[in-house]
Amino acid sequence: MAVEWSGLTPDVLLRLDRQSPETLGSQLQNALRTAVREGRLQTGERLPSSRKLATDLGVSRGLVQATYEQLEAEGYLRAFGGSATRVAFSPQSAVTTLSKPTPVARMEIDFIPGRPDLNSFPTRDWLWACGEATRTASATDLGYGDPQGSIRLRCVVAAYLQRVRGAFAGADDLVICSGFTQGIALTLAALRAEGLTSVAVEDPGHQDMHTLVRRAGLTPVFVPVDDQGLVVDELVRTKATAVIVTPAHQTPTGVVLSPERRLALLRWAERMNGVVIEDDYDSEFRYDKQAVGSLQGLAADHVVSIGSVSKSLAPAIRLGWVLAPRRLVARIAEEKNRSDRGSPALDQLALARLIESGRFDRHLHRMRSVYGARRGVLVEAIGEHAPNLELTGLAAGFHALARLGETADEAGLIAAAAQRSVGLQGLGRYTSPNYQGSPAIVFGFGDLNADAIKRGITTIADLLRQHA
Amino acid sequence: MAVEWSGLTPDVLLRLDRQSPETLGSQLQNALRTAVREGRLQTGERLPSSRKLATDLGVSRGLVQATYEQLEAEGYLRAFGGSATRVAFSPQSAVTTLSKPTPVARMEIDFIPGRPDLNSFPTRDWLWACGEATRTASATDLGYGDPQGSIRLRCVVAAYLQRVRGAFAGADDLVICSGFTQGIALTLAALRAEGLTSVAVEDPGHQDMHTLVRRAGLTPVFVPVDDQGLVVDELVRTKATAVIVTPAHQTPTGVVLSPERRLALLRWAERMNGVVIEDDYDSEFRYDKQAVGSLQGLAADHVVSIGSVSKSLAPAIRLGWVLAPRRLVARIAEEKNRSDRGSPALDQLALARLIESGRFDRHLHRMRSVYGARRGVLVEAIGEHAPNLELTGLAAGFHALARLGETADEAGLIAAAAQRSVGLQGLGRYTSPNYQGSPAIVFGFGDLNADAIKRGITTIADLLRQHA
Repeated sequence: MAVEWSGLTPDVLLRLDRQSPETLGSQLQNALRTAVREGRLQTGERLPSSRKLATDLGVSRGLVQATYEQLEAEGYLRAFGGSATRVAFSPQSAVTTLSKPTPVARMEIDFIPGRPDLNSFPTRDWLWACGEATRTASATDLGYGDPQGSIRLRCVVAAYLQRVRGAFAGADDLVICSGFTQGIALTLAALRAEGLTSVAVEDPGHQDMHTLVRRAGLTPVFVPVDDQGLVVDELVRTKATAVIVTPAHQTPTGVVLSPERRLALLRWAERMNGVVIEDDYDSEFRYDKQAVGSLQGLAADHVVSIGSVSKSLAPAIRLGWVLAPRRLVARIAEEKNRSDRGSPALDQLALARLIESGRFDRHLHRMRSVYGARRGVLVEAIGEHAPNLELTGLAAGFHALARLGETADEAGLIAAAAQRSVGLQGLGRYTSPNYQGSPAIVFGFGDLNADAIKRGITTIADLLRQHA
Repeated sequence: MAVEWSGLTPDVLLRLDRQSPETLGSQLQNALRTAVREGRLQTGERLPSSRKLATDLGVSRGLVQATYEQLEAEGYLRAFGGSATRVAFSPQSAVTTLSKPTPVARMEIDFIPGRPDLNSFPTRDWLWACGEATRTASATDLGYGDPQGSIRLRCVVAAYLQRVRGAFAGADDLVICSGFTQGIALTLAALRAEGLTSVAVEDPGHQDMHTLVRRAGLTPVFVPVDDQGLVVDELVRTKATAVIVTPAHQTPTGVVLSPERRLALLRWAERMNGVVIEDDYDSEFRYDKQAVGSLQGLAADHVVSIGSVSKSLAPAIRLGWVLAPRRLVARIAEEKNRSDRGSPALDQLALARLIESGRFDRHLHRMRSVYGARRGVLVEAIGEHAPNLELTGLAAGFHALARLGETADEAGLIAAAAQRSVGLQGLGRYTSPNYQGSPAIVFGFGDLNADAIKRGITTIADLLRQHA
């Protein structure tokens, strides 16, 4: 049953509901706060005495007094002399009402690159690992941990990177972070503190990279990528002393950096005392042979290698690592501390358990065959329906590049596909304004099942025929 | 059984162990990588033919060939003509060996402020919430989520802040972050983008605050705190148009901002079109009466309120929120996106469940009585053993201030206590160089049981007698 009171003006309606789980005191406080906030009670306005309001509302006088005192402490009301209580403050502009969030439209079939198969997330294994980690966490584990990351996870990741990526990694060479975006931000901040001013980035390359570089107070310099990967001769001509590369599977072309280019890049780093920042993002998934080892293994003094579980598990986990030369580690850990005081400890311990127990490797093994099969479906569907599309970059990961031909209308195709609820990303998203190259589509196939891939390619083939 | 080979020089020893779970191919690769990395195989050095090495090691020739090919792809080796394989690259300086992490010394009894009772972490409830969240997470939940934060958690936190903190909050007014440190960094970055140049901070105040402000490219301005909280008259004299305050329980003095000062602060904000940034860090725990509501509730257009579960649950969870005026929210969310692409989704969903289910409130209720009891023990122990210490700031939270007297040697006491494995923090850590005030100790009692508090205070009383 609700009691209402509107003793001052019709605008000021205080409503108490005895059926509500909220206490009457809390209801009264909130009703008064809202009246003040919305300007229905103005500064200086006098409230009824506690006795009067208590009688009107049928509540105890103590409850009204306690409410007035609370709102006085908070600055809404002010007591004058003995009994007069007045509104102390009301905002000059009434605050806009609370808004409803707007939903985002989604494509039925989305070839967005960089998204792993989210339906294959190992829910049971992850829950098992969370359980183990949480149940055995010490009080110290629950506090502000080492901003560099849980020592347990760092040991496990170091062993993993040695074993799987041919990296040269000890626990002290790693900083745990939330993924590539944070890892690169921390690394660039650390390098900037050492005097770095400009950083070379791949063209075409990761679409946010130049923004991330600028945001770190540095100047991005675009260096072209060809069918062997980054053109190191062009890098040499720049003044950059650091470069961000994707050697195992270039974003977005999918090229694997050739042995000659790897050597040239490392020689450049030694000569310039430069830094190669390796975005080691999906190298776990290579199909025709063993994944190419991390550049870092060959030149640990000059390479920063950034990895994460965003592709191997799920982006939602938000865990990754920066493997850096000894001189940079402390600075990167300090940047991590200043930016968020370390990643969540229980998640870190859970990931450590997942890897230690062999469940992570088992998941990777399973996913390699899932992605391998999808890759096969993509190749076959394109071969059947759109044989003119030249697919490259299929050695690893779960995206590939399809060139459309010199005169094709990349943006037109993307817009037409979107009309049919098929999401595509064009190469144009990944290139600098100066990039010279033919239009292309970057096909991500990680999060699409065989049927979706086939239907998507059929639709695109249809559109290509119409446009031709 | 291990097979060894040292055909080139005594330095280059390749060791294969057939008992190891690691494949022979992987062992051979790693042994060669290490030999190159450590300079035992130098650039240009010729390796034995695959046939020869295979015979020497007792493995198949194909295994050696595959190893050579892999290391060629990675840049360690290079094939010349038909059979000759040589070392392609060796680092100019041998990389230092992997180091062991160093353990941190801990105090037996540590009165460090800001640490909640970590032994009371609701492990079962948290695991329940993680289970619910993970099992019901959709594929979309597992992807890169909304950088502003999970809509579900934002709805739940908005309702919580309205109910418990008297805040004026909708889901769209919130950005989920990892805690205060990240929240303030994001907020300051957003304000700086709007043209802010200097920010007032409390003196004494949060020890990292001026560093966080400087790191955001802004100038900190110290404003004194007295026994009513921030001296707003002094704030008015500065040129700052933003101020960071701890109104519910000042860090480190524990003062609750008085009603007059609250009003003066909000009037300043309206007059200057300024921003009050409220660090709402431990207000859930108030003992003598209901917690003082958030400043934000009274002036949502001028107040940014930052909170977290670091004190209410545990720092290790790394979840918090920024409640901001509408015009700032999008910018803060964009900063969050650029810095780490959003907080971990499963943790966010777990926290939402924990709050929705009432388990969070139940935990807070329980902790309020735990902390209340500890507060009583501290007051009693000081009354009994060190009655000259004047304790203030006990209305809320789990730290209080004890003034030592004008001539006391704060640093000396802290050092002597550390010798006896009692950790203390002095007021000196929290003050600007210009601060005028008597020496004091900031006693945190959140993570100490009754026995530890008593023993710690007895030790300190002992030291105070010796120093007197």
